Order: sequence, then C-alpha cells, then structure tokens
Amino acid sequence: MTSRRIITLTTDFGLRDHYVAAMKGVALDISMEANLIDVSHDVEPQNIAQAGFLVASIWAFYPDDAIHVAVVDPGVGTNRKPIAVHAAHGIFIAPDNGLLAPALLAQGALQSSDGLLTHAAGVELINSTYHRTPVSPTFHGRDIFMPVAAHLSTGADFFDLGPMIEHIVCDQVSNVREESGVIRGTVVHIDRFGNAITNISGAVLPPRLSVSVVGATVVGLSLDYQAAEVVAIVGSSGSLEIAVRNGSAAEELGLKVGDEVTVSAAT
Amino acid sequence: MTSRRIITLTTDFGLRDHYVAAMKGVALDISMEANLIDVSHDVEPQNIAQAGFLVASIWAFYPDDAIHVAVVDPGVGTNRKPIAVHAAHGIFIAPDNGLLAPALLAQGALQSSDGLLTHAAGVELINSTYHRTPVSPTFHGRDIFMPVAAHLSTGADFFDLGPMIEHIVCDQVSNVREESGVIRGTVVHIDRFGNAITNISGAVLPPRLSVSVVGATVVGLSLDYQAAEVVAIVGSSGSLEIAVRNGSAAEELGLKVGDEVTVSAAT
Amino acid sequence: MTSRRIITLTTDFGLRDHYVAAMKGVALDISMEANLIDVSHDVEPQNIAQAGFLVASIWAFYPDDAIHVAVVDPGVGTNRKPIAVHAAHGIFIAPDNGLLAPALLAQGALQSSDGLLTHAAGVELINSTYHRTPVSPTFHGRDIFMPVAAHLSTGADFFDLGPMIEHIVCDQVSNVREESGVIRGTVVHIDRFGNAITNISGAVLPPRLSVSVVGATVVGLSLDYQAAEVVAIVGSSGSLEIAVRNGSAAEELGLKVGDEVTVSAAT
Repeated sequence: MTSRRIITLTTDFGLRDHYVAAMKGVALDISMEANLIDVSHDVEPQNIAQAGFLVASIWAFYPDDAIHVAVVDPGVGTNRKPIAVHAAHGIFIAPDNGLLAPALLAQGALQSSDGLLTHAAGVELINSTYHRTPVSPTFHGRDIFMPVAAHLSTGADFFDLGPMIEHIVCDQVSNVREESGVIRGTVVHIDRFGNAITNISGAVLPPRLSVSVVGATVVGLSLDYQAAEVVAIVGSSGSLEIAVRNGSAAEELGLKVGDEVTVSAAT
Repeated sequence: MTSRRIITLTTDFGLRDHYVAAMKGVALDISMEANLIDVSHDVEPQNIAQAGFLVASIWAFYPDDAIHVAVVDPGVGTNRKPIAVHAAHGIFIAPDNGLLAPALLAQGALQSSDGLLTHAAGVELINSTYHRTPVSPTFHGRDIFMPVAAHLSTGADFFDLGPMIEHIVCDQVSNVREESGVIRGTVVHIDRFGNAITNISGAVLPPRLSVSVVGATVVGLSLDYQAAEVVAIVGSSGSLEIAVRNGSAAEELGLKVGDEVTVSAAT
Repeated sequence: MTSRRIITLTTDFGLRDHYVAAMKGVALDISMEANLIDVSHDVEPQNIAQAGFLVASIWAFYPDDAIHVAVVDPGVGTNRKPIAVHAAHGIFIAPDNGLLAPALLAQGALQSSDGLLTHAAGVELINSTYHRTPVSPTFHGRDIFMPVAAHLSTGADFFDLGPMIEHIVCDQVSNVREESGVIRGTVVHIDRFGNAITNISGAVLPPRLSVSVVGATVVGLSLDYQAAEVVAIVGSSGSLEIAVRNGSAAEELGLKVGDEVTVSAAT
C-alpha cells in the first residue's frame, strides 16, 4: 500500500536559494511517497509570530494525520529545543520558540498561561536515529525537522523520537484581553491585499460593535469587502480583519503587524 | 486504483499568505491523490484578463482530463455565478467574470460574439453537496471552487454540480480586429523577461509585415530573440510578441498590458 | 507498479508567467506519475553560474535516480547543444553552456581542465522521438528538456536520446586557486538572508585562518551565525560563507556575486 502522507512546509527560507529544495530532497530520499505541500516560504526572515499565524490558519483544512513542519529558527545552534507535538488535528514539528503556540491554542491543545500541553503529546527531538548526520549547526530544517517528518510519514513511532515534554514555549503568543467590555488584540498579519488580520476571533465579538485601530474607527461589521470605504469584517480565517474597499488597509491606514486593535460595544 | 488526477491552480492570492495552502488542504482532505499543480499565484490582484491569459496559455499542454481552477474574483460575495465548463480539452472552474473566455475561445468552445458555449457543457455551481460549508462570503476559492474540483477528480458527476448554463460572461476578452488589411490587438501580458505578449495569433500574420506599438515600429518577423535590437517574434505560446535583445521591451519601450498593437503588410 | 520518479526543476522563468506550468504539463502528459519538485525558478535571468550553484547544492540530497532539469538558456535557438549527463548521483539535463559543471565537478564526474566527463556518460539530445514537436526555437525547456526527462522517468533508454559526447562546456566554472598558501575563490551566491556563499570548500581550509573580501577581513572560523558581528563560517552547503549577525553581509559589506575571496593562514 502506498501512503501519500501529507507534509506541509512553512519557512522563512524563500525560494531563491537551495534550502527548501535540500529539505525536500532529504524527505523524498527517506520516503518517495511523501506528499510535500508548501504553505509559504516567504515568512519575513526570523518572524516567528507570522509563521505561527500561518500554521494556525491552515491546519484545520488538512487531514488529521497531516504533518506540519515549520522552520523559523533564529536560535538554531543555541540550546533551544527541536520539538514535535502530536495533537488531535495534526502532528506539528518546529523549534521550541513559540511558533507552534497559535496552532495548538486554536485547537485546545495548549494552556496559554503556562505553555502546558493538554490533549496533546510533546517530545524533544534528540534521537539521532531519525536525523540526518552529521547535523549542521545552522540548518536543522534539513537535518532534524524534515527527516523526522519523513520518518513519521513512513510509520516511525512518535514516542521514539525523544523524551516527552510537558510544556512548550509560548512567549510569542499575543494574548487577547477583555476588560470592562473592551476587547484588546493585535494585528498579526498583513495579507497580499493589504488586509490587516487580527488575533481576535469572530466568535467573541458583540453583536453591535465599534473597532478602533491607529488612524481609523469603524462602526459595525460588514459581510463583504465592498460594503464601505473602510470595513471591519470576519474574514475567511474566522478572525476580525480591517480592510479598505478596492485598496490596501495597510497602506491607506498605515497599519502594520503588532498594532493594537480595540473592540467595544457600539451604542 | 489510484487516480492522480491533475488539478491546476491559477490565482491572485500570492504565496505569502495562507490562502493557497488552505485551498490545497481542502482538496487533499477530499482526495489524497489529487495532483495539485501551481500555474501561478502571482496574478496582479483582481486582474481577470491576466489570469485568463495564463489559463489560455497552459491548457493545451495538459491531459484532456485535467481540471483547471482559476480564482481571480473581485465580485466574490456578489451575484456573479461560480461556474464549471467541461470542454474537449479540460474542465475549467472559475467565477463567471470572463476569466475562462480566452481558454475556451482558443479551443473553439465559445462564441466571442455572445458568450455561447459550443462543443462544451457549462453548469452553475449551486449544489452545496460539493461545497465546503458554511461557504465564506469572501473565499469561494476554498469553499466552492476547490471542493468542486476535488470531488470531480474522484468521479463526481459533472451534471450534478448544478443547473446547466448556455452562456458565460466574456466581457474581458480583448478582441482582435482586422480592417483594410490592418490587424489591431493588444498587449495581454508582460513576462518576466519584459517581453510584451499580444493576443494576435501567429497564424493570422501576413508573410511580410510591420508591427507598431507605442514607441516602436518593427519591420519583419524574427526567428529568435537575438536577431535584432527590437524584434517582433511569434513566441512559444504561438502569439506575436515584442522583445528587446538582452533587455526588457516593457522597460525600454514603455510597453504595458492593454497597449494597442497594429500589424500591417510591409511593402 | 507506479513509478514516482523525481524530476527537479531549476530555471530563470519565474512563477508569474505560464512557462513553468507549460513545462509541467508536458511532463505530466507523458508521465502522470512524475514527481515534479521545484528547486527555484527565481534564478536571475540568464545567470548560468547561479543556476549551476543551485543544482550543485541540491543533488546530494536526492535519490541517485532523480532527474535534474535546469534551464537557463541565453543561447536557445543558436547552436549550443541540449545535453543529458548520467552520473553516479543523478541524471542531469540542461543546455551545454556550463550550467552542469559545478554539480558534476562536485561529484567527481568532470575534469575542470578540459570538460572531459569521467565516471559519467553524456549524450546530445537530438533524437526527436523524445521531443515535443514542432520544437519552438525559443523554448527548449518545454519542447526538449522536459519531454526527455519525462520519457527517462518512464524508462526510456538513456543512450537512445542521441549520440554520446565526451566533453561538456565548463567555461562558467569559477576555479578556486591556491598559491603560496593563499586560497583565492569567489562569491557564487547571495542567499535570502544576505549571506555571501563562496566556491571555497570548507574541507580545504587551514585550521587557523584569515578571510578577506572587499570591505572586511575576518580572523577565525565561527560555528554559528551569532558568534560575532561579521563571521566566516562553513555553512550548511559545506562552503565558506561570509555573514553578518542578524543582518545582511551583502548589504552591510557591499558583497556581490563574483567578488574575490582570499583565505590565508592566520598567525
């Protein structure tokens, strides 16, 4: 039986260089049948939060046995751990630098207060049987993360990858806070169209609301991007977005990743 | 039997965001064996004509049972129809906004005068059995077009997708006109090398000719890009192109999409 | 038996246009099971040396039966030969313009002095049975290189592709010279992070060294990118690199492809 197990890739390596193709070669050399799917390699260099947003935005659309590899790794070669987390909806492989927190929080596999895994198992990737050797000090994507993913895709035992861990780093998670009826979140991604995507779930919004960002206040939610000059909308990822009709909210309002967004009940 | 049915993707979603990976996840969740091939995701945002050019430029190289999904969809959420067209050389799935017209015209499956399908069957995609639910008002690529393509790839009945349609929109088609021996067309694409590709087929050119665009007139066709400083050439897509030797015609002559091109017999 | 034979692609065609998708369609029309893997399509237009570097950087990670197609082809339509080389670690298909030299040198399949193939067989691709016809004078990637690769992937006889050749062009190879204990090489690639990758192998470096490039001299090798402001490091590809901590060596030192790099013993 062939097993076309899916392995998704999210990195900041770009596609001008040989890095991504090297990773794919390593995976295919272990498993000819691996089904490699690019999420994005255009993460801003070393932007862990952006990679975290991307992984959190795609896992729900993949089969539960998909393996998601994400490598944005400014600490490569230092003592940050390489980890894998087996959750109900996917296996996630990355450096332990907060990258996986948004995806795991979104599926209820992590406590944001202390980084405790819940309904999910974690391991530190130290069993070199599943690594490419020698491991380069600068390219764990090729030498640890991808070989581990490929071995898992061919049936390696998750718990043989290394010792179990109970907590993961979740520093990079921008928490959404609610106080006195005001919700405060942040812009976590600017998409290609210039829409500013926040970390505020559409599920927590009051029925009548006012959304404020630097340079604009919008009253009411719209159902599509054409409804007004500046719209607040629950986008396709289920989060609150700020958009400008036929234009770029990022450019026209000066929005950028990290900007605060507040939502209050409109009167 | 495994069925590695090909599904090509052409969008303006870029590869920095999660949109394309979400679409691929939806397809693979329906059919693990779908063979997803990217045409381009770098269509200029909302440029229907450019997407139409790309699809028209690639269908002929694919097997006739390939499924071509193209999503450049400024009208998403309005009353434009989502459609599929089953032609002799491929199944085409897109919003009904003119995107499919160039590909269907090129294979004789459409009348440019009134958008009537000929030797091809069309359906409006309203059977929600084949959609992802709930359908987002802003992302039919993920919720309608890709699930329909994936279900077709596993054997769904084309005529069960929705009611038949006889006409499609073909507003975006730039017609080539011939009058008094002068052929008038337009630049439909500027490629990476700066070559200006027109919608004038190499098959209709007179044996000795003069080609005029803004800023240049070229006498005679060349057989390769090195033949002269500025060349008129029938490029690999079979259309008339304007190119500059070892340079960019777009930059050096100031050519852009939409510019008029006239061809007349040279004396 | 299905054969998911790997075909890698390295070109300067970009992903905005239809060229790469046309090549993939041609391959899949010949072999539905071809496993097409993109190395990069963002090679600087007509930069043969950069494409050569990329192919040389990835073959070692792929199975030995992988087929590597590389098309950077300023001489298309002239009398440069289309060739294939069957080496111990891969089959390589490209125009005979020096592109394949770095990969073949690296695996000991080529003599740099005169371009003689050793432990490798070469053929000139003239048997039109394996081409798409008619062959466009401007797009051999689609009409010769990819069809040949796809036919090989389904079992075509290598020696039926055309007459054997004993030498290939290796003009583009920047040789590394050593004289009086000083090693002289060049920068062959600037990666996404601005690291300047040289053609000097880490294996030939003296234990204590001084590395000089335009604008900087570095004493000693570092083990990771964080060790100092400017570091000399043997990167993941095994070659000497110049990097700037949390920055771009290319921008901050003004380095570019072709710059000379000298290594001498430090006292």
